Amino acid sequence: MGRWEPNARGRLEQAALELYVERGYEQTTVAEIAKRAGLTERTFFRHYADKREVLFGGSDTLRDHLVNAVAAAPDSAAPIDAIAGAVEGVGVLFDERHERARQRQAVIALNAELRERELIKLASLSAALADTLRRRGVPDPAASLAAEAGIAVFKIAFERWISGPGEPGLSQLVRESFDALKAVTAGT
Amino acid sequence: MGRWEPNARGRLEQAALELYVERGYEQTTVAEIAKRAGLTERTFFRHYADKREVLFGGSDTLRDHLVNAVAAAPDSAAPIDAIAGAVEGVGVLFDERHERARQRQAVIALNAELRERELIKLASLSAALADTLRRRGVPDPAASLAAEAGIAVFKIAFERWISGPGEPGLSQLVRESFDALKAVTAGT
Repeated sequence: MGRWEPNARGRLEQAALELYVERGYEQTTVAEIAKRAGLTERTFFRHYADKREVLFGGSDTLRDHLVNAVAAAPDSAAPIDAIAGAVEGVGVLFDERHERARQRQAVIALNAELRERELIKLASLSAALADTLRRRGVPDPAASLAAEAGIAVFKIAFERWISGPGEPGLSQLVRESFDALKAVTAGT
Repeated sequence: MGRWEPNARGRLEQAALELYVERGYEQTTVAEIAKRAGLTERTFFRHYADKREVLFGGSDTLRDHLVNAVAAAPDSAAPIDAIAGAVEGVGVLFDERHERARQRQAVIALNAELRERELIKLASLSAALADTLRRRGVPDPAASLAAEAGIAVFKIAFERWISGPGEPGLSQLVRESFDALKAVTAGT
Protein backbone atom coordinates (compact mmCIF):
# COMPACT_ATOMS: atom_id res chain seq x y z
CA MET A 1 0.00 0.00 0.00
CA GLY A 2 1.28 3.43 -0.88
CA ARG A 3 1.44 6.39 1.47
CA TRP A 4 -1.71 7.93 0.05
CA GLU A 5 -4.85 6.01 0.90
CA PRO A 6 -7.93 7.18 -0.94
CA ASN A 7 -10.62 7.80 1.67
CA ALA A 8 -8.56 6.17 4.41
CA ARG A 9 -10.18 8.54 6.88
CA GLY A 10 -13.68 7.38 6.00
CA ARG A 11 -12.68 3.73 6.09
CA LEU A 12 -11.07 4.16 9.50
CA GLU A 13 -14.16 5.90 10.82
CA GLN A 14 -16.47 3.17 9.57
CA ALA A 15 -14.22 0.41 10.97
CA ALA A 16 -13.99 2.18 14.33
CA LEU A 17 -17.76 2.66 14.62
CA GLU A 18 -18.40 -0.99 13.75
CA LEU A 19 -15.96 -2.16 16.41
CA TYR A 20 -17.19 0.28 19.07
CA VAL A 21 -20.74 -1.00 18.52
CA GLU A 22 -19.73 -4.69 18.36
CA ARG A 23 -17.18 -4.85 21.19
CA GLY A 24 -17.55 -1.62 23.10
CA TYR A 25 -15.47 1.54 22.86
CA GLU A 26 -13.22 0.74 25.83
CA GLN A 27 -12.38 -2.73 24.50
CA THR A 28 -11.38 -1.59 21.01
CA THR A 29 -7.74 -0.83 20.14
CA VAL A 30 -6.28 1.30 17.38
CA ALA A 31 -4.58 -1.83 16.02
CA GLU A 32 -7.97 -3.50 15.61
CA ILE A 33 -9.47 -0.46 13.93
CA ALA A 34 -6.60 -0.26 11.44
CA LYS A 35 -6.81 -3.98 10.72
CA ARG A 36 -10.57 -3.86 10.13
CA ALA A 37 -10.07 -0.96 7.73
CA GLY A 38 -7.29 -2.82 5.92
CA LEU A 39 -4.79 -0.11 6.83
CA THR A 40 -1.77 0.24 9.08
CA GLU A 41 -1.67 1.80 12.55
CA ARG A 42 0.68 4.36 11.10
CA THR A 43 -2.01 5.38 8.62
CA PHE A 44 -4.50 5.60 11.50
CA PHE A 45 -2.27 8.06 13.33
CA ARG A 46 -1.85 10.18 10.22
CA HIS A 47 -5.60 10.81 10.38
CA TYR A 48 -6.54 10.67 14.06
CA ALA A 49 -4.68 11.44 17.28
CA ASP A 50 -6.37 8.57 19.12
CA LYS A 51 -9.44 6.34 19.06
CA ARG A 52 -11.57 8.98 20.75
CA GLU A 53 -10.91 11.56 18.05
CA VAL A 54 -12.43 9.26 15.42
CA LEU A 55 -15.75 10.19 17.01
CA PHE A 56 -15.00 13.93 17.04
CA GLY A 57 -13.07 14.34 13.82
CA GLY A 58 -15.90 16.31 12.19
CA SER A 59 -16.06 18.97 14.91
CA ASP A 60 -13.79 21.47 13.19
CA THR A 61 -15.68 21.17 9.90
CA LEU A 62 -18.96 21.64 11.71
CA ARG A 63 -17.68 24.73 13.54
CA ASP A 64 -16.23 26.22 10.36
CA HIS A 65 -19.51 25.73 8.48
CA LEU A 66 -21.51 27.33 11.28
CA VAL A 67 -19.15 30.27 11.75
CA ASN A 68 -18.79 30.97 8.03
CA ALA A 69 -22.54 30.86 7.49
CA VAL A 70 -23.21 33.30 10.33
CA ALA A 71 -20.43 35.60 9.12
CA ALA A 72 -21.89 35.52 5.58
CA ALA A 73 -25.51 36.26 6.59
CA PRO A 74 -26.93 39.53 5.22
CA ASP A 75 -26.31 42.56 7.44
CA SER A 76 -30.05 42.93 7.76
CA ALA A 77 -30.52 39.43 9.22
CA ALA A 78 -31.66 39.35 12.84
CA PRO A 79 -29.14 37.43 15.02
CA ILE A 80 -31.52 34.50 15.55
CA ASP A 81 -32.14 34.26 11.80
CA ALA A 82 -28.41 34.29 11.04
CA ILE A 83 -28.00 31.46 13.55
CA ALA A 84 -31.04 29.54 12.30
CA GLY A 85 -29.82 29.72 8.71
CA ALA A 86 -26.38 28.48 9.72
CA VAL A 87 -27.67 25.56 11.80
CA GLU A 88 -30.16 24.58 9.12
CA GLY A 89 -27.36 24.70 6.56
CA VAL A 90 -25.19 22.15 8.35
CA GLY A 91 -27.89 19.57 7.75
CA VAL A 92 -26.22 18.85 4.37
CA LEU A 93 -23.03 17.77 6.17
CA PHE A 94 -25.02 14.89 7.60
CA ASP A 95 -26.69 13.74 4.40
CA GLU A 96 -25.81 10.08 3.87
CA ARG A 97 -24.52 9.90 7.43
CA HIS A 98 -27.67 8.87 9.27
CA GLU A 99 -26.49 5.36 10.09
CA ARG A 100 -23.03 6.53 11.17
CA ALA A 101 -24.53 9.30 13.28
CA ARG A 102 -26.86 6.81 14.93
CA GLN A 103 -23.99 4.42 15.72
CA ARG A 104 -21.81 7.26 16.98
CA GLN A 105 -24.51 8.51 19.36
CA ALA A 106 -25.09 4.99 20.71
CA VAL A 107 -21.37 4.65 21.48
CA ILE A 108 -21.19 8.07 23.13
CA ALA A 109 -24.29 7.40 25.25
CA LEU A 110 -22.56 4.41 26.88
CA ASN A 111 -19.38 6.20 27.98
CA ALA A 112 -19.19 9.06 30.49
CA GLU A 113 -15.92 10.44 29.13
CA LEU A 114 -17.36 10.58 25.60
CA ARG A 115 -20.54 12.27 26.83
CA GLU A 116 -18.33 14.91 28.48
CA ARG A 117 -16.35 15.35 25.28
CA GLU A 118 -19.62 15.85 23.38
CA LEU A 119 -20.77 18.51 25.85
CA ILE A 120 -17.45 20.30 25.42
CA LYS A 121 -17.86 20.18 21.65
CA LEU A 122 -21.33 21.74 21.86
CA ALA A 123 -20.15 24.41 24.32
CA SER A 124 -17.27 25.35 22.04
CA LEU A 125 -19.64 25.57 19.05
CA SER A 126 -21.85 27.90 21.06
CA ALA A 127 -18.87 30.06 22.04
CA ALA A 128 -17.72 30.25 18.40
CA LEU A 129 -21.20 31.31 17.25
CA ALA A 130 -21.46 33.96 19.97
CA ASP A 131 -18.03 35.35 18.98
CA THR A 132 -19.11 35.52 15.36
CA LEU A 133 -22.27 37.42 16.28
CA ARG A 134 -20.24 39.86 18.41
CA ARG A 135 -17.98 40.51 15.43
CA ARG A 136 -21.16 41.37 13.51
CA GLY A 137 -21.89 44.00 16.16
CA VAL A 138 -24.50 42.05 18.15
CA PRO A 139 -24.17 43.03 21.83
CA ASP A 140 -24.36 40.66 24.79
CA PRO A 141 -26.43 39.07 26.19
CA ALA A 142 -28.21 38.82 22.80
CA ALA A 143 -25.16 37.27 21.09
CA SER A 144 -24.69 34.59 23.76
CA LEU A 145 -28.42 33.88 24.00
CA ALA A 146 -28.88 33.50 20.23
CA ALA A 147 -25.83 31.20 20.08
CA GLU A 148 -27.00 29.06 23.02
CA ALA A 149 -30.49 28.85 21.52
CA GLY A 150 -29.02 27.75 18.19
CA ILE A 151 -26.95 24.97 19.75
CA ALA A 152 -29.89 23.82 21.89
CA VAL A 153 -32.01 23.58 18.74
CA PHE A 154 -29.24 21.74 16.91
CA LYS A 155 -28.85 19.24 19.76
CA ILE A 156 -32.57 18.57 20.07
CA ALA A 157 -33.14 18.35 16.30
CA PHE A 158 -30.14 16.03 15.99
CA GLU A 159 -31.51 13.71 18.68
CA ARG A 160 -34.88 13.63 16.90
CA TRP A 161 -33.15 12.91 13.59
CA ILE A 162 -31.05 9.98 14.80
CA SER A 163 -33.88 8.44 16.79
CA GLY A 164 -36.02 8.44 13.63
CA PRO A 165 -35.61 6.85 10.20
CA GLY A 166 -33.58 9.71 8.70
CA GLU A 167 -36.55 11.28 6.96
CA PRO A 168 -37.47 14.10 7.38
CA GLY A 169 -33.86 15.22 7.04
CA LEU A 170 -31.87 17.07 9.67
CA SER A 171 -32.33 20.49 8.03
CA GLN A 172 -36.09 20.18 8.18
CA LEU A 173 -36.02 19.05 11.81
CA VAL A 174 -33.80 22.03 12.64
CA ARG A 175 -36.32 24.34 10.97
CA GLU A 176 -39.20 22.78 12.90
CA SER A 177 -37.29 22.97 16.18
CA PHE A 178 -36.53 26.68 15.64
CA ASP A 179 -40.23 27.26 15.05
CA ALA A 180 -40.97 25.27 18.22
CA LEU A 181 -38.44 27.35 20.17
CA LYS A 182 -40.05 30.58 18.97
CA ALA A 183 -43.46 29.29 20.06
CA VAL A 184 -42.08 28.14 23.42
CA THR A 185 -40.35 31.41 24.27
CA ALA A 186 -43.44 33.35 23.17
CA GLY A 187 -45.22 31.47 25.97
CA THR A 188 -47.64 29.52 23.78
CA MET B 1 -13.46 19.17 69.13
CA GLY B 2 -16.66 17.14 69.28
CA ARG B 3 -18.10 15.11 66.45
CA TRP B 4 -20.62 17.77 65.55
CA GLU B 5 -19.05 20.81 63.95
CA PRO B 6 -21.42 23.72 63.55
CA ASN B 7 -21.22 24.87 59.96
CA ALA B 8 -18.21 22.67 59.25
CA ARG B 9 -19.41 22.39 55.66
CA GLY B 10 -19.35 26.13 55.12
CA ARG B 11 -15.95 26.50 56.80
CA LEU B 12 -14.49 23.75 54.64
CA GLU B 13 -15.89 25.36 51.50
CA GLN B 14 -14.45 28.73 52.39
CA ALA B 15 -11.04 27.24 53.27
CA ALA B 16 -10.98 25.25 50.03
CA LEU B 17 -11.88 28.26 47.87
CA GLU B 18 -9.18 30.38 49.53
CA LEU B 19 -6.56 27.72 48.93
CA TYR B 20 -7.65 27.02 45.34
CA VAL B 21 -7.34 30.73 44.57
CA GLU B 22 -4.04 31.19 46.44
CA ARG B 23 -2.18 28.03 45.40
CA GLY B 24 -4.20 26.56 42.57
CA TYR B 25 -6.73 23.74 42.65
CA GLU B 26 -4.30 21.00 41.57
CA GLN B 27 -1.73 21.93 44.24
CA THR B 28 -4.19 21.92 47.14
CA THR B 29 -4.69 18.81 49.29
CA VAL B 30 -7.59 17.77 51.47
CA ALA B 31 -5.23 17.85 54.47
CA GLU B 32 -4.48 21.53 53.79
CA ILE B 33 -8.16 22.38 53.41
CA ALA B 34 -9.04 20.69 56.70
CA LYS B 35 -6.15 22.42 58.46
CA ARG B 36 -7.11 25.86 57.13
CA ALA B 37 -10.68 25.25 58.32
CA GLY B 38 -9.44 24.14 61.75
CA LEU B 39 -11.00 20.71 61.24
CA THR B 40 -9.80 17.15 60.70
CA GLU B 41 -9.53 15.31 57.41
CA ARG B 42 -12.09 12.90 58.79
CA THR B 43 -14.54 15.76 59.18
CA PHE B 44 -13.79 16.83 55.61
CA PHE B 45 -14.74 13.40 54.31
CA ARG B 46 -17.96 13.41 56.30
CA HIS B 47 -19.02 16.39 54.20
CA TYR B 48 -17.36 15.95 50.81
CA ALA B 49 -16.25 12.91 48.80
CA ASP B 50 -13.15 14.72 47.50
CA LYS B 51 -11.71 18.17 46.88
CA ARG B 52 -13.57 18.51 43.60
CA GLU B 53 -16.96 18.02 45.20
CA VAL B 54 -16.42 21.06 47.41
CA LEU B 55 -17.02 23.06 44.24
CA PHE B 56 -20.14 21.10 43.27
CA GLY B 57 -21.70 20.40 46.66
CA GLY B 58 -24.60 22.75 45.94
CA SER B 59 -25.68 21.01 42.72
CA ASP B 60 -28.32 18.77 44.31
CA THR B 61 -29.87 21.66 46.20
CA LEU B 62 -29.97 23.72 43.03
CA ARG B 63 -31.60 20.90 41.06
CA ASP B 64 -34.16 20.23 43.80
CA HIS B 65 -35.12 23.91 43.96
CA LEU B 66 -35.53 24.11 40.19
CA VAL B 67 -37.49 20.87 39.87
CA ASN B 68 -39.77 21.62 42.83
CA ALA B 69 -40.53 25.10 41.57
CA VAL B 70 -41.44 23.85 38.08
CA ALA B 71 -43.56 21.06 39.56
CA ALA B 72 -45.37 23.58 41.77
CA ALA B 73 -46.12 26.12 39.02
CA PRO B 74 -49.84 26.69 38.34
CA ASP B 75 -51.33 24.32 35.77
CA SER B 76 -52.12 27.32 33.63
CA ALA B 77 -48.47 28.46 33.44
CA ALA B 78 -46.90 28.22 29.99
CA PRO B 79 -43.80 25.93 30.06
CA ILE B 80 -41.39 28.83 29.54
CA ASP B 81 -43.03 30.76 32.39
CA ALA B 82 -42.81 27.76 34.74
CA ILE B 83 -39.10 27.52 33.87
CA ALA B 84 -38.51 31.27 34.14
CA GLY B 85 -40.15 31.41 37.56
CA ALA B 86 -38.04 28.49 38.78
CA VAL B 87 -34.74 29.90 37.51
CA GLU B 88 -35.53 33.35 38.87
CA GLY B 89 -36.37 31.76 42.22
CA VAL B 90 -32.97 30.14 42.69
CA GLY B 91 -31.43 33.59 42.80
CA VAL B 92 -32.11 33.60 46.56
CA LEU B 93 -29.82 30.56 46.98
CA PHE B 94 -26.96 32.78 45.91
CA ASP B 95 -27.73 35.77 48.11
CA GLU B 96 -24.63 36.47 50.22
CA ARG B 97 -22.61 34.14 48.01
CA HIS B 98 -21.36 36.60 45.40
CA GLU B 99 -17.73 36.51 46.49
CA ARG B 100 -17.69 32.72 46.84
CA ALA B 101 -19.37 32.30 43.46
CA ARG B 102 -16.80 34.61 41.89
CA GLN B 103 -13.90 32.67 43.43
CA ARG B 104 -15.44 29.34 42.43
CA GLN B 105 -15.85 30.42 38.82
CA ALA B 106 -12.26 31.67 38.68
CA VAL B 107 -11.00 28.28 39.91
CA ILE B 108 -13.17 26.37 37.45
CA ALA B 109 -12.11 28.53 34.53
CA LEU B 110 -8.46 27.50 35.06
CA ASN B 111 -9.00 23.73 35.02
CA ALA B 112 -10.30 21.69 32.07
CA GLU B 113 -11.62 18.84 34.23
CA LEU B 114 -13.61 21.29 36.37
CA ARG B 115 -15.00 23.04 33.30
CA GLU B 116 -16.21 19.64 32.06
CA ARG B 117 -17.77 18.87 35.42
CA GLU B 118 -19.59 22.21 35.27
CA LEU B 119 -20.95 21.43 31.79
CA ILE B 120 -22.19 18.06 33.06
CA LYS B 121 -23.90 19.79 35.97
CA LEU B 122 -25.69 22.19 33.64
CA ALA B 123 -26.69 19.38 31.25
CA SER B 124 -28.12 17.35 34.12
CA LEU B 125 -30.08 20.37 35.37
CA SER B 126 -31.52 20.79 31.89
CA ALA B 127 -32.47 17.09 31.72
CA ALA B 128 -34.15 17.30 35.15
CA LEU B 129 -36.16 20.36 34.09
CA ALA B 130 -37.24 18.72 30.83
CA ASP B 131 -38.37 15.60 32.74
CA THR B 132 -40.38 17.75 35.13
CA LEU B 133 -42.10 19.51 32.24
CA ARG B 134 -42.92 16.16 30.61
CA ARG B 135 -44.50 14.99 33.85
CA ARG B 136 -46.66 18.12 33.63
CA GLY B 137 -47.82 16.93 30.21
CA VAL B 138 -45.61 19.18 28.07
CA PRO B 139 -44.69 17.28 24.88
CA ASP B 140 -41.29 17.23 23.22
CA PRO B 141 -39.57 19.10 21.68
CA ALA B 142 -41.24 21.92 23.68
CA ALA B 143 -40.19 20.40 27.03
CA SER B 144 -36.53 20.00 26.02
CA LEU B 145 -36.41 23.41 24.33
CA ALA B 146 -37.90 25.26 27.31
CA ALA B 147 -35.49 23.45 29.66
CA GLU B 148 -32.45 24.19 27.49
CA ALA B 149 -33.53 27.81 27.15
CA GLY B 150 -33.88 28.07 30.93
CA ILE B 151 -30.42 26.70 31.59
CA ALA B 152 -28.89 28.90 28.89
CA VAL B 153 -30.47 31.94 30.54
CA PHE B 154 -29.26 30.81 33.97
CA LYS B 155 -25.71 30.35 32.70
CA ILE B 156 -25.58 33.70 30.95
CA ALA B 157 -27.24 35.59 33.83
CA PHE B 158 -24.86 33.90 36.28
CA GLU B 159 -21.83 34.96 34.27
CA ARG B 160 -23.12 38.53 34.17
CA TRP B 161 -23.76 38.43 37.91
CA ILE B 162 -20.31 37.20 38.93
CA SER B 163 -18.49 39.50 36.53
CA GLY B 164 -20.31 42.47 38.10
CA PRO B 165 -20.44 43.88 41.65
CA GLY B 166 -23.31 41.65 42.80
CA GLU B 167 -25.97 44.30 42.28
CA PRO B 168 -28.38 43.97 40.52
CA GLY B 169 -28.94 40.55 42.09
CA LEU B 170 -29.00 37.26 40.25
CA SER B 171 -32.81 37.05 40.17
CA GLN B 172 -33.07 40.36 38.40
CA LEU B 173 -30.39 39.43 35.87
CA VAL B 174 -32.24 36.16 35.20
CA ARG B 175 -35.44 38.15 34.57
CA GLU B 176 -33.63 40.52 32.22
CA SER B 177 -31.98 37.62 30.38
CA PHE B 178 -35.34 35.87 29.86
CA ASP B 179 -36.72 39.09 28.42
CA ALA B 180 -33.64 39.33 26.18
CA LEU B 181 -34.13 35.72 25.05
CA LYS B 182 -37.75 36.42 24.16
CA ALA B 183 -36.67 39.45 22.14
CA VAL B 184 -33.87 37.48 20.46
CA THR B 185 -36.05 34.53 19.43
CA ALA B 186 -38.74 36.92 18.21
CA GLY B 187 -36.11 38.18 15.76
CA THR B 188 -35.83 41.71 17.08
